[in-house]
Amino acid sequence: MFQTPFLRPERSARQVFEWAIRQAIFADKIGFSEYWIGEHATLNWEGIPSPELVIAAAALQTSRIKFGPLAHLLPYHHPATLAIQTAWLSQILEGRYMLGVATGAYPTDAALRGISDLSKNHPMMLEAIDIMERVWKGEPFQFEGTYWDAGFPEADGKKKLRDVRPWGGSMQMAMTGLSAPSPSISFAGQHGFIPASVYAGNDFLRSHFQTYREKMEEAGRPSDRLMHRVVRDVIVAETDEEARKMAIDGGIGLAWDEYIRPTYERFGVLKHLVHDPSMDLTKVDAEYLAEHVWIVGSVETVRQKMDAWIDDLGGPFGTLLIYSHDYIDNPEPWEHSMQLLVNEVVPKLATSAEVEAA
Amino acid sequence: MFQTPFLRPERSARQVFEWAIRQAIFADKIGFSEYWIGEHATLNWEGIPSPELVIAAAALQTSRIKFGPLAHLLPYHHPATLAIQTAWLSQILEGRYMLGVATGAYPTDAALRGISDLSKNHPMMLEAIDIMERVWKGEPFQFEGTYWDAGFPEADGKKKLRDVRPWGGSMQMAMTGLSAPSPSISFAGQHGFIPASVYAGNDFLRSHFQTYREKMEEAGRPSDRLMHRVVRDVIVAETDEEARKMAIDGGIGLAWDEYIRPTYERFGVLKHLVHDPSMDLTKVDAEYLAEHVWIVGSVETVRQKMDAWIDDLGGPFGTLLIYSHDYIDNPEPWEHSMQLLVNEVVPKLATSAEVEAA
Repeated sequence: MFQTPFLRPERSARQVFEWAIRQAIFADKIGFSEYWIGEHATLNWEGIPSPELVIAAAALQTSRIKFGPLAHLLPYHHPATLAIQTAWLSQILEGRYMLGVATGAYPTDAALRGISDLSKNHPMMLEAIDIMERVWKGEPFQFEGTYWDAGFPEADGKKKLRDVRPWGGSMQMAMTGLSAPSPSISFAGQHGFIPASVYAGNDFLRSHFQTYREKMEEAGRPSDRLMHRVVRDVIVAETDEEARKMAIDGGIGLAWDEYIRPTYERFGVLKHLVHDPSMDLTKVDAEYLAEHVWIVGSVETVRQKMDAWIDDLGGPFGTLLIYSHDYIDNPEPWEHSMQLLVNEVVPKLATSAEVEAA
Repeated sequence: MFQTPFLRPERSARQVFEWAIRQAIFADKIGFSEYWIGEHATLNWEGIPSPELVIAAAALQTSRIKFGPLAHLLPYHHPATLAIQTAWLSQILEGRYMLGVATGAYPTDAALRGISDLSKNHPMMLEAIDIMERVWKGEPFQFEGTYWDAGFPEADGKKKLRDVRPWGGSMQMAMTGLSAPSPSISFAGQHGFIPASVYAGNDFLRSHFQTYREKMEEAGRPSDRLMHRVVRDVIVAETDEEARKMAIDGGIGLAWDEYIRPTYERFGVLKHLVHDPSMDLTKVDAEYLAEHVWIVGSVETVRQKMDAWIDDLGGPFGTLLIYSHDYIDNPEPWEHSMQLLVNEVVPKLATSAEVEAA
């Protein structure tokens, strides 16, 4: 699951927090494997500024699911402080933690930290990763960077320092990509990070798969398509009609209408989501999205659509992440949809049979 | 309660985290009013680097108790990011949040952020407070500081920004003092922050009370001794003997022996804790501390000691904070001590009768 969150701006901070934790606990209980959470300081439609607080709150109430911010925006934190916080969470979760990182793309988030020129964010991210990786070793160093200073002290003879290494000795990192060609997916391949693709059509996905494979191979790493995460909207119900109603009249429809569609239009992504290039983009409404972009329907319909999708992609990727949406006022059908997806759809996919057989 | 934490370094991150949350939930249940948590990145005896994670984890499992970091070390965070995180917690907790701040006094914590000259930390803290207070207004500004840049963006017409104001519109802040005269207590008085005195003898406490009153009055604020928090070690049991055993052979004794006593000696504080100035400091052992520094005994003994203490201070202060200690392996007697303190001792204090009558 990907908890962006896509909750309507009228929700209070407490409602957002409660929903994010409820979803994490439920996802863990029914067998979801991963739960990722966005970070934005100023956005009112993606209103979790501190994903680490949600992870901490869900940590002891879950047992199998892995957590990760997706993504901590590296230019906006002191990297040594962030290295310590993320390593501590990784220790607390005894490995059920992965760290998504990003440069930060929203000007209002940047303005909060006095940054008006976002071209600095990429070199800031690089320096931050360098500092964090040094801190995680727990060995003495001193570093004077362009953006931050950092170091790790010598322990004096008697007083040992706290162990600051991530669980297992290293941190699994991740990065999201949206556009194609995607510099983030390319970076993920160069560094062995998990690539998480926000769904923007199959052409973009195929481009992400290819970019990642090339970069992994260039870096001398075995390339594995199962590393890929793909984020998409899915609703499953007892009937097609019920599923369509839940999507179009519910949280997914609202989020796309008020936030996602305008955002994708601004970023030039919407046209790639549309299967027919001659399509008039003003006609892309909830009905269209429910038919062609979201995956919506009964167990059988969703299974067929997923099999066709995976087929069109030339085979399976690693992990499907579904967006969490605003079903706060009536959570049960939404949670039932999550259950149907995990218990009914996924085991019946052609891909699952292949994986099972392998 | 003050969760420094004083847990032995062998405890895992998960044990530290679980204990801190268990104590918070129990303290809330039995009627403690406040729960404060330390922040240190590198110390192995004060091993919580991110108090906000403990607060977030306990937030929805508590209903009355107020939380606060004590303290976020301001030079080690981007102030705008910290302002956002703390305001969000204040919103989530719907006011059950207070923010302790400090400059950071440990060289190893500073070295992690590339700081070798700790004299910079005070001006860094001042600039950080200034930035945080601007962010919390949620109104546009731009700021280029000595240490950080920050700002708050204009909302563009259609897209409103997330509300970043603390619950109720302002943030109650706090600061700890240890030595006398204490620049931190003085600063707290100048700014209307809560003063939290780490107990180092009655002379120091009286100095803190006086400093705070003077600075509050100079700033034109009504001075109220009930603003004062004092942190001290307390154990209550059915008998004096049982309480002494729990203290001396338990977590309090261990923490003082291995960590607190050597630290206080290095900071020159130990001699002030001793009631007789001619006392040989090498003779200050657990037996001595249990008799003269910690407050240890049966309900009746602890009541008498507290009444005498408050009498010697010339009247009551606002809130007693007790340290949490390492009773992880056998928590029940420790939790029973907390219960006896709240239910049996406090209602019988002469002070409580006065407050009740007033």
